[in-house]
Amino acid sequence: MDTYTKRTMTTQRFEALSDGVIAIILTIMVFDLKFQDPITPETIADQLIQLIPSFLTYAVSFFTICVFWFHHHQLFHQMHSLTPSILWLGLHWLFWMSLIPFATHFVGTHPSYWQATLLYGLIFFAAAAAFSRLRRAVLAKGLLHAEVDGRRVRSILTKNKVGQILYLLGALSGLASVYLAFLFFIIVPAMYVWPEKSSH
Amino acid sequence: MDTYTKRTMTTQRFEALSDGVIAIILTIMVFDLKFQDPITPETIADQLIQLIPSFLTYAVSFFTICVFWFHHHQLFHQMHSLTPSILWLGLHWLFWMSLIPFATHFVGTHPSYWQATLLYGLIFFAAAAAFSRLRRAVLAKGLLHAEVDGRRVRSILTKNKVGQILYLLGALSGLASVYLAFLFFIIVPAMYVWPEKSSH
Amino acid sequence: MDTYTKRTMTTQRFEALSDGVIAIILTIMVFDLKFQDPITPETIADQLIQLIPSFLTYAVSFFTICVFWFHHHQLFHQMHSLTPSILWLGLHWLFWMSLIPFATHFVGTHPSYWQATLLYGLIFFAAAAAFSRLRRAVLAKGLLHAEVDGRRVRSILTKNKVGQILYLLGALSGLASVYLAFLFFIIVPAMYVWPEKSSH
Amino acid sequence: MDTYTKRTMTTQRFEALSDGVIAIILTIMVFDLKFQDPITPETIADQLIQLIPSFLTYAVSFFTICVFWFHHHQLFHQMHSLTPSILWLGLHWLFWMSLIPFATHFVGTHPSYWQATLLYGLIFFAAAAAFSRLRRAVLAKGLLHAEVDGRRVRSILTKNKVGQILYLLGALSGLASVYLAFLFFIIVPAMYVWPEKSSH
Repeated sequence: MDTYTKRTMTTQRFEALSDGVIAIILTIMVFDLKFQDPITPETIADQLIQLIPSFLTYAVSFFTICVFWFHHHQLFHQMHSLTPSILWLGLHWLFWMSLIPFATHFVGTHPSYWQATLLYGLIFFAAAAAFSRLRRAVLAKGLLHAEVDGRRVRSILTKNKVGQILYLLGALSGLASVYLAFLFFIIVPAMYVWPEKSSH
Repeated sequence: MDTYTKRTMTTQRFEALSDGVIAIILTIMVFDLKFQDPITPETIADQLIQLIPSFLTYAVSFFTICVFWFHHHQLFHQMHSLTPSILWLGLHWLFWMSLIPFATHFVGTHPSYWQATLLYGLIFFAAAAAFSRLRRAVLAKGLLHAEVDGRRVRSILTKNKVGQILYLLGALSGLASVYLAFLFFIIVPAMYVWPEKSSH
Repeated sequence: MDTYTKRTMTTQRFEALSDGVIAIILTIMVFDLKFQDPITPETIADQLIQLIPSFLTYAVSFFTICVFWFHHHQLFHQMHSLTPSILWLGLHWLFWMSLIPFATHFVGTHPSYWQATLLYGLIFFAAAAAFSRLRRAVLAKGLLHAEVDGRRVRSILTKNKVGQILYLLGALSGLASVYLAFLFFIIVPAMYVWPEKSSH
Repeated sequence: MDTYTKRTMTTQRFEALSDGVIAIILTIMVFDLKFQDPITPETIADQLIQLIPSFLTYAVSFFTICVFWFHHHQLFHQMHSLTPSILWLGLHWLFWMSLIPFATHFVGTHPSYWQATLLYGLIFFAAAAAFSRLRRAVLAKGLLHAEVDGRRVRSILTKNKVGQILYLLGALSGLASVYLAFLFFIIVPAMYVWPEKSSH
């Protein structure tokens, strides 16, 4: 925060904190995969079936968090240094990320409630918006290595805007159908992975 | 602890442990954001409203822990080496930090109880006092890099004392009003972030 | 994901994320070691005995995860660089690993249900298959250091196939006997540790 | 495990895994600090008092784990390389460490049961014995840096034996008095910290 640290501030320790938080979010969601009533031989099949929404929501959240992490990894890899305000934007992004397990549990246990889908979509939207803001600030402050292609960074910023709009649409479309909402929630991370996978 | 390690002791592994603990504290608090009764279409609105104190307390704790982490990051970044007694003071600080999720949950689920606010404030006070003690010991042992400005370190020690007094006032003012108490709990981390943010 | 990062992508941060996830999986399973009813002096002996299946399942899962981690550690140690598709295969492996605590809890609390043993075995199978796929991709893309002995890598790929078949057999044999199933679940990690231990 | 990795195996990634596990153990125990019944203004004082044994047990466990971590940190800092069998001994130690939260919760919620104190002491004993075995193996394989004073290492091995005996005595003395047992449980970590603290 002061001039003396700004000079030498590196990304390493913030990356360690972020990796820790992401690792915990990823893993701990599975702890909400619990049977809600005592199991008997008669009910076990039904109870396993009732876990399916929780499992699928977990898979979507896991995939989404991995895509976020991937981009976080990439962005910090491209930076040569860090300023305090970038760090605060990074922590702000982590705050929204940390709410994903709550929304995942809510949707998984109450898939038929539009309130759950709305909250799930809004938290993804907030995390995406926070990450986009972080990326724009990194660009504005000129913290990227010189060899990073500025055009590609700008094109990804456009993609970020599209992703945020789709998350809002997903959050709202849960009022009509939870399946439609999840279509949006799967499309957004997929559109980050698809083109790049196909180019290798 | 022995002469042979003291010679080469670096801050790296203690930073890794601290980052791990901080990452877990930050993330795991959200696991107490749980609905307390089964949800029905009639009760869901009420239940979401009942979660608001938990959510706000979570946000305050998240922000406070981030400010602590930021200063921890900064302090260890300025140190050229570590002694065993500094390490024990760091672990002592982590102990108080680890109690924050307990107090956060208590306040979030029982915002109208002054006992909860009192405990919340006292744990913040203890963590702040432990961190201040750590910083003073680092300074007293001359472990900071030569280029670190001593005047700034002393000015932050004064700020630390003010912060601790405000935490005590916050803890006690919960007897009168939980809103007043939270005003104090928000002012303390904010007074660390504000001036430095504005200078960039 | 882009050409500019592909050039310099190192394994370090993915290793950090994986270590975080593995550490959480290892540790957090123990949180399901809970007494299921209030304890009284009359029931405590029975309740401790009822925890034995949970404890043993925990030990098997802990051991299995350690063996997985060991091989992950070894594989990434042998790689000179990382591509995005390898990273996605690694995350895919982590997804199946993250389900181990769920299955461990299910088997530990319901050891007499073949559904639990089946699920436990299938998740181990999926994790083993995902790891094998990751290893084959690393080999196919020529990402290993030149001095790594290709013959040994191919011999371990054969071992991987045997392990996967044994996990499937274990999963299915739970329909006949949970003891038989666990024999398979112990043999697989043991066959990775045994020969190498004896050669030192 | 194979010759090609043995050559270059470093302690770094095992330290990262261990730090992760230790950080989780330290932090997550506090999640068992929960009120056991709904709180009312009449019962809150009693309920807070009922949490005291849990809190004190937590503090003892936290302190003990820190002492273990400190010695782990020190030992790995003194090693120049790692062999697979050392790694397995380290994982074996982590297994016993990971059971500490279970025993802490058991003692904290049932301080008057000798079974809880016995289990708590036995787990500490097992962790201490596992660590001692790890240290002896490191010494036997000549993995320590040349400048490490062998006499000091041997003197700490004697101390380890004393500690293990005291843990056994503590575990058994819980049959007579939980206070006596905790006296032992506090003396053991203290005897590692005391002399070294006083020499600085």
